[in-house]
Amino acid sequence: MPFDPERRTAWLPDLLYDGTHFDRDRTFVTDERAGHLSEIGFPDIPAAPRAVRLKNRALFPGLVNAHSHAFQRVIRGRTEFRSSERDTFWTWREMMYSAAERLTPEDVYDASRMAFLEMALSGITTVGEFHYLHHNPDGTPYDDPNLLAKQVILAASDVGIRIALLRTAYARPGFDAEPNPRQSRFITRDAGEFIEHTEELRAELARGEQAYAKQVRGDAPPPPGLTPRGGRLARERVPLAWVGVAPHSVRAVPLEYLREVAAYARARKRVVHMHVAEQPAEVEACRAEYGRTPVALLSEEGLLDERFTAVHAIHVTTGEAHLLGSSRAHACACPTTERNLGDGVVPADLFFDRGVRVALGTDSHAQIDLLEDARELELNLRLAKLSRAVLPPAASDNPSIKPPPRPSSLAARLFECATASGATSVGGRALERARPGDFFTVALDDPSIAGAGDDDLLAAVVFSSSRAAVREVCVGGRLIVENGRHFAQDEIVARFSALQRKLWG
Amino acid sequence: MPFDPERRTAWLPDLLYDGTHFDRDRTFVTDERAGHLSEIGFPDIPAAPRAVRLKNRALFPGLVNAHSHAFQRVIRGRTEFRSSERDTFWTWREMMYSAAERLTPEDVYDASRMAFLEMALSGITTVGEFHYLHHNPDGTPYDDPNLLAKQVILAASDVGIRIALLRTAYARPGFDAEPNPRQSRFITRDAGEFIEHTEELRAELARGEQAYAKQVRGDAPPPPGLTPRGGRLARERVPLAWVGVAPHSVRAVPLEYLREVAAYARARKRVVHMHVAEQPAEVEACRAEYGRTPVALLSEEGLLDERFTAVHAIHVTTGEAHLLGSSRAHACACPTTERNLGDGVVPADLFFDRGVRVALGTDSHAQIDLLEDARELELNLRLAKLSRAVLPPAASDNPSIKPPPRPSSLAARLFECATASGATSVGGRALERARPGDFFTVALDDPSIAGAGDDDLLAAVVFSSSRAAVREVCVGGRLIVENGRHFAQDEIVARFSALQRKLWG
Repeated sequence: MPFDPERRTAWLPDLLYDGTHFDRDRTFVTDERAGHLSEIGFPDIPAAPRAVRLKNRALFPGLVNAHSHAFQRVIRGRTEFRSSERDTFWTWREMMYSAAERLTPEDVYDASRMAFLEMALSGITTVGEFHYLHHNPDGTPYDDPNLLAKQVILAASDVGIRIALLRTAYARPGFDAEPNPRQSRFITRDAGEFIEHTEELRAELARGEQAYAKQVRGDAPPPPGLTPRGGRLARERVPLAWVGVAPHSVRAVPLEYLREVAAYARARKRVVHMHVAEQPAEVEACRAEYGRTPVALLSEEGLLDERFTAVHAIHVTTGEAHLLGSSRAHACACPTTERNLGDGVVPADLFFDRGVRVALGTDSHAQIDLLEDARELELNLRLAKLSRAVLPPAASDNPSIKPPPRPSSLAARLFECATASGATSVGGRALERARPGDFFTVALDDPSIAGAGDDDLLAAVVFSSSRAAVREVCVGGRLIVENGRHFAQDEIVARFSALQRKLWG
Repeated sequence: MPFDPERRTAWLPDLLYDGTHFDRDRTFVTDERAGHLSEIGFPDIPAAPRAVRLKNRALFPGLVNAHSHAFQRVIRGRTEFRSSERDTFWTWREMMYSAAERLTPEDVYDASRMAFLEMALSGITTVGEFHYLHHNPDGTPYDDPNLLAKQVILAASDVGIRIALLRTAYARPGFDAEPNPRQSRFITRDAGEFIEHTEELRAELARGEQAYAKQVRGDAPPPPGLTPRGGRLARERVPLAWVGVAPHSVRAVPLEYLREVAAYARARKRVVHMHVAEQPAEVEACRAEYGRTPVALLSEEGLLDERFTAVHAIHVTTGEAHLLGSSRAHACACPTTERNLGDGVVPADLFFDRGVRVALGTDSHAQIDLLEDARELELNLRLAKLSRAVLPPAASDNPSIKPPPRPSSLAARLFECATASGATSVGGRALERARPGDFFTVALDDPSIAGAGDDDLLAAVVFSSSRAAVREVCVGGRLIVENGRHFAQDEIVARFSALQRKLWG
């Protein structure tokens, strides 16, 4: 479908889920002229020239994938051959590195588009891309230090989803560790240089957004607000791409460096993502270097706040969950990857109990199906505890947390992880407040959810739905998936297949 | 697509997987006149009047779902509401019972068709239905003691998949347990009566098969064999429906009863399925009654042989795995259900090590995606062991087992669980030997597997594919799913939706 920026559209599904409950006879209005904003209203909203009936569909807010390494799509399936030595996370990582060092900038674009295409087809409308490929394979910088980051952003833009480019700082192989030449593309030894390049990318994106907004709006005045009955129109634009920072881990970023990056992020209000406590060996190395665990160290250094996300956070204690929760930090679980890598199970029960907001990510892309990740947040704990319904359905009643009122079913909480918690994780509060006009629909007659009513549809979608049920996906008012097909699907797949033949054929 | 029994068809996919490796330029020939048999051959097979090119597809043997309770599809999603008491397997069971007691024979048909439809759409061509609904809700028998079993068989037939009706013996609530009126529909107190009714059903199916075969073949002579190059044509017919027996569990069937059913099964060469060691409480009750575990008891009683399948078999020891393996028995893992119910993880590592053939089942239908079950056989063990590649890629070298030569990748072994091991579990050796003309295809450009080559396609399909990739499904030469749609999909979904409104609306 061609992109027509002039459109204001009222979408009319059979059922509309707004994050707390289902409604019939409500519309989801997207307004691209106002800068990709939206409002939920009633069928008689006067300001929408175009109404699209989504028959036999339920409409949901777009999913937010808070942790991705898009290029790792190229090793899907190729890491399931057992090596002669004992296969572990660390041998998997060497295989991943061997792919990373062979990708040209164009390859990074093609691999990223493939990952983002599959995300779009499964209902994901925003991705947090934890991006650590910066240099030539031999470690020399490109003329443009953000060449590869821009390939990834361009890929997201061409697929049509939003992207938080979480620019990753990687300074060393680890505490007392030998240099690994396969990490040459990742490393920026100087924190100042890392910050400077991050700011350059931010500035370039801001210039692009301004030009884009001007092009979309033309000279027209801002559109009139909707009628009071239709609700207020948010005034901020929701950008399509923005920058956060990602000090890779306490292993890969020494303390002084981390402090500099943290100070920068705090001053500029950037979100900060870090890998935290994914592997026991990483926790042990942190203890050896600093005499404390990663979460304790980050807490003491003042990094834990509402803009911080601890990715994985598997090997943590109740006390550490409390540190994350009381600081309003996020955790990001990546269950399909964590089971594939044998990392373990994120203690979401501790996190929910302590008010930690849990986002979800597809990470290594062993699978791309964020609803499978959402259900595994609960189901993998059931395996560990030999019980059912491990996670509490209601929001934490920890009085120091005061979360907004939220739905009280387990399915609703898991869905919140895949949407609102992901939005605050990768975009900060602004993204959640601005209510981007992003949605996906499911076919109510798909066999994976057929027969569900208003009261159990969300449970069916979260616990049982297949990607095949996803039919339309819309980002900022633009329909990028229609009847289960993406507008550029064939070309993206063909280019990716050619890349895989080049890499492995 | 209308069913034309006159067709002999050569299917020509891009890639054909025969259980050990991929081939290009080979055909899969189905011959409905010969009674739903098939052969893998070459494009120049002369005897196929019709050739169907399956462009951009890989063709795989049909999946075998070895453990199903089809009617439980009606509670999907409805058991994810946390009850006020602690939610466990046993509280889940009460919810399931409350649905079971409300279903009319027609409801059983509609619910079963829905489950079988979803199976077909995910590549399943044969189901082992562990069927325990026999009577009126108050426990009085129907005039036809197999009324409900026939509803289920009819449902499979109308969807077009093969069914092993594993007729379930349920004699009591448990050792020293209070009667549970919600089990009234299951119970047949007398073993002789159970066997008699099972034989009646078997005889009726045999008469139906004979009539069917006559109708399909007409008066024509058996079709000529294929050329030697195309391979030999199997002579046996593969039935569409057959009967096995399923003493529910050592809890629900006392020892004397079990002995009678086992003697019957042995004499008539019926497969025997039992729930074994799904829950710790069940193992404890067996110890209390018999002073030994379920597997030890079954071994002493001589039930373990190549026609026996221990469903679940979670809480077993290394020694018990050895008992199962050395007797050539099967285990049937149901990972998506077992994680949903908090049962635990099937020790497939022990089973593979001891030569136990592991089949797979979707059981409660929390999800219906047998390839997800296949990958979880490995992935749930990774979570338990915090490692990768837990299961050995090669077949057991236990000299007492002598399995046929098999492929040596982990993906191939998991795929074998979903196909060949399921076939021997529900159909005995006959089903595997007869090579039914059942297959499914995946679209090679589906984003979940795109870019995979001959060497990693199987790993991509097993570890990463979505149901959306499945495009054609063929049973005995009859195409029941075409381009991702089943020929009766809309009607089946509409009827099931009406049923759900009646039950829960």
